[in-house]
Amino acid sequence: MTGERVWTAALLVIGDEILSGRTQDKNVAQIALWLNEQGIRLAEVRVVPDETGRIVDAVNALRTGHDYLFTTGGIGPTHDDITVDAIAIAFGVPVVIDPTARRILEDYYRERSGGLTEARLRMARVPQGAELIINPYSGAPGIKMANVHILAGVPAIAASMLAGLTGKLEGGRPVVSVTVGARAAESDVADLLRETETANPGVAIGSYPFFSNGRYGANFVIRSEDGELAQRTADELASRLRQAGYEPIDGGI
Amino acid sequence: MTGERVWTAALLVIGDEILSGRTQDKNVAQIALWLNEQGIRLAEVRVVPDETGRIVDAVNALRTGHDYLFTTGGIGPTHDDITVDAIAIAFGVPVVIDPTARRILEDYYRERSGGLTEARLRMARVPQGAELIINPYSGAPGIKMANVHILAGVPAIAASMLAGLTGKLEGGRPVVSVTVGARAAESDVADLLRETETANPGVAIGSYPFFSNGRYGANFVIRSEDGELAQRTADELASRLRQAGYEPIDGGI
Repeated sequence: MTGERVWTAALLVIGDEILSGRTQDKNVAQIALWLNEQGIRLAEVRVVPDETGRIVDAVNALRTGHDYLFTTGGIGPTHDDITVDAIAIAFGVPVVIDPTARRILEDYYRERSGGLTEARLRMARVPQGAELIINPYSGAPGIKMANVHILAGVPAIAASMLAGLTGKLEGGRPVVSVTVGARAAESDVADLLRETETANPGVAIGSYPFFSNGRYGANFVIRSEDGELAQRTADELASRLRQAGYEPIDGGI
Repeated sequence: MTGERVWTAALLVIGDEILSGRTQDKNVAQIALWLNEQGIRLAEVRVVPDETGRIVDAVNALRTGHDYLFTTGGIGPTHDDITVDAIAIAFGVPVVIDPTARRILEDYYRERSGGLTEARLRMARVPQGAELIINPYSGAPGIKMANVHILAGVPAIAASMLAGLTGKLEGGRPVVSVTVGARAAESDVADLLRETETANPGVAIGSYPFFSNGRYGANFVIRSEDGELAQRTADELASRLRQAGYEPIDGGI
């Protein structure tokens, strides 16, 4: 697939709660899988604390180094939600109230006690020049500022913001993965793996060992943008494993 | 705790399998919690693919920006395990066979078919000048190169390498977290949170909303290196929540 354009994205996770170990991140895997469906490769992830300067630096490094940048976290109504302000600084623009976001929040809070308080109105703030990512499942919109896509940190809300973006980003071909497993110590098949990868330009083979039920095993993941090539390579690997005395298991163990 | 030295670490996760979404990372939370026990704050995480240039750049950015750098992944026997080579390049030194690591592997593979093959001997390779992180629970040692600590990607093996480092790194005071929960929409208590944080210099209050059993709620996490101050602030927050009509729940919901 030489010469074909590869679209890449970076993800910036903004969250003291991830860095403290309090919360197990779920957005990396979720966004990685969604991006692949859009034909975009997640090429880098950074996690930074809730500190403006650190967010600004990371946003500027990542938005210029990749086709797309996604951020998660820090867009709620409380004092520790500083993502919008930091991204506005990164772009050198002021923060403004988005009239559509304001209307969405007014509707949402009309029936709720207190109405659209000042704290709640914070969630309508966007960097000047941004567009909304209309969320088909819940009220809260995400924000698109140039190639930066600002999503919520709560994984279910991030997911419904992604749904509002599905099919709308320019991308290439998804990477196809084919997995072959074997009850082999990976050190016993290292040469065979390397040879199979070298013999098939355009594929990458990853080896993921494990130990279960008292036995060694490994899954070998063949990745390529060319689905037929990935499958052909997987078949070749299975046949080489069989010749070496291991029973290959399609789809992995 | 103004003026007290804060020790920071970065974590570099090396892994196509994390960036593809195939594998859910577990090392970030595990290493974050362990670091806090050592009095070291995890200040940044990056995830990069299995590409030498990307690993070298990230290693050099992170090892100079923090007291410590930890890496996970890419130290097995297969062709996709390139972490040691990349870190040697980052330091400008050759890769050598460590005699102690070789002895550990010889002992380990003596009884196993094939013995210490060339592929297995790869796991004794270290950047010149490195020391081993002796792993008390399993054979495979980690590697310490200056302030860079090279760990396995499999979380259970990474954990036993961390056990070999426990108590050995210089650090400051652990951050103490005290959690107070309430069945409140965070937008309703945003002012109260901000006021409590402002009134107690030296604490940071994070707000983590959720929606469960048809009701809104949030956990408020008060963090400080001063445990008494954290507890005092939590008590103050609980009392402010009670005054505002919410029942505070010690330890969170």
